[in-house]
Amino acid sequence: MSLPPPPGCNVALAERVLVRFLQEECGRAGFSRGVLGLSGGIDSALVVELAARALEPGNVHAVCMPYHASDPQSLRLAKESAGHAGVALEVVDISAAADAMFAHAGDLEDLEDPGVRLRRGNLLARLRMVTLYDRSARLHALVLGTSNKTELLLGYGTQHGDMASAINPIGDLYKAQVVALSRHLGVPQDIVVRPPTADLWAGQTDEQELGFRYDEIDALLHAMVDRRHGREALLRMGFPAAMVDAVDTRVRRNQYKRRPPLIAKLANRTINLDYRYARDSWT
Amino acid sequence: MSLPPPPGCNVALAERVLVRFLQEECGRAGFSRGVLGLSGGIDSALVVELAARALEPGNVHAVCMPYHASDPQSLRLAKESAGHAGVALEVVDISAAADAMFAHAGDLEDLEDPGVRLRRGNLLARLRMVTLYDRSARLHALVLGTSNKTELLLGYGTQHGDMASAINPIGDLYKAQVVALSRHLGVPQDIVVRPPTADLWAGQTDEQELGFRYDEIDALLHAMVDRRHGREALLRMGFPAAMVDAVDTRVRRNQYKRRPPLIAKLANRTINLDYRYARDSWT
Repeated sequence: MSLPPPPGCNVALAERVLVRFLQEECGRAGFSRGVLGLSGGIDSALVVELAARALEPGNVHAVCMPYHASDPQSLRLAKESAGHAGVALEVVDISAAADAMFAHAGDLEDLEDPGVRLRRGNLLARLRMVTLYDRSARLHALVLGTSNKTELLLGYGTQHGDMASAINPIGDLYKAQVVALSRHLGVPQDIVVRPPTADLWAGQTDEQELGFRYDEIDALLHAMVDRRHGREALLRMGFPAAMVDAVDTRVRRNQYKRRPPLIAKLANRTINLDYRYARDSWT
Repeated sequence: MSLPPPPGCNVALAERVLVRFLQEECGRAGFSRGVLGLSGGIDSALVVELAARALEPGNVHAVCMPYHASDPQSLRLAKESAGHAGVALEVVDISAAADAMFAHAGDLEDLEDPGVRLRRGNLLARLRMVTLYDRSARLHALVLGTSNKTELLLGYGTQHGDMASAINPIGDLYKAQVVALSRHLGVPQDIVVRPPTADLWAGQTDEQELGFRYDEIDALLHAMVDRRHGREALLRMGFPAAMVDAVDTRVRRNQYKRRPPLIAKLANRTINLDYRYARDSWT
């Protein structure tokens, strides 16, 4: 029994909506510039294309932040991506800062230990956030998010790391839709066909780590989240029970990564609980 | 004309509610331990007292993270605070990592420049977050927030820095209420009477930087936010127009720091817009 296909993408419409989103939201916040991290992967390559169209290439500042163990391919592809979008690329080697942090922890040396690899990966993602937010202040540029909907729902990303941004143009696009829109906008082919990877250790790929193919996860998440199908319906559609349960657990368990801190309620108006104005009433 | 007093605090009730909040929310998330940064200031000193009562002192891990330019008084008071709460204190000097980040930026040397001081301060706050979140993973301990309601409303803190946490027991307490509850729980007197400071440069105090006294700001925020008084009513209560407008502007302008990233809407269920389950339905 074959699974449903991943959701499609009306690429012309998506391009128009997302370019306008970047223009309007930057303007509303009082910014004309954007800053983003370019990893050499497809998500950030798509965002830099959208940002160059929305804000003019001269108003977009891209930063590639390799660690000494990063795949050299990543920096090469980041350069290719910035070049294609016509955007300036700053390269910041985060090795010295990262190694200082690793040394302090004292227990982050054993790269065979999956727990250590995860902690090192999260630490690198957060040091990149620190760098981007500093450049945001220096250049008066909004931090543009590069997390797609698949990653955000699965919680496959680092809170206060790559998941941190002011505005995110691609957070409502599943991975398959990111690929379709990237092809439409001419993202270099090397980047489009590269197996998605967090590049935290040699040979890592997302699909191997997640245990499922992106096409299948996208189809399942779309049926589960956007179409609101329950477990029984998903099984009837052909999704294996083990996959449905594993993905459902990930989505629930990582909900905290998508939410602000929970504050203990004591007064009659509490931040993030009942003190929250509609943002549009203030602009 | 005298201003209204800052809001009071039913300290016995607050203690009971907040201890229970920490127990319930840690349990709900599957944690029995907490981790927090101790700065030597009153906010984190209050949280460590609450956490020690809620989780047992042995389940609370406190970390003090000085930079070489930090006031040595801060570390001394952090030790005093951990000692009083009966909690273990880890000291992590973030100087090497911070100096590596400063050197990369290349334009963060001039400490007389207020923009540079702000960027350096934000960078230090974020490196402390990186350290705390790493310890959270190592110890399977929830990161406990230490931002009070005054700071959160004014946006007087660093996004993805000291404002980052999993759960925050004191985010609904104004500064004056933090002081009252701290006295009730026996926070050491040296800490209670120390002028609040972010300790980002020598001699810095919050009140000097904010331009108003905490008691006055608390009274104004309480009238504005909790009692929902409008501008005219606030002026009739005796608050100077310049203060009302300055505080109102800060609260609105920093709303983004209290919210997750804004995602461009393309599908019928978008993260943080209309895809958000009531958290309790999942536990």
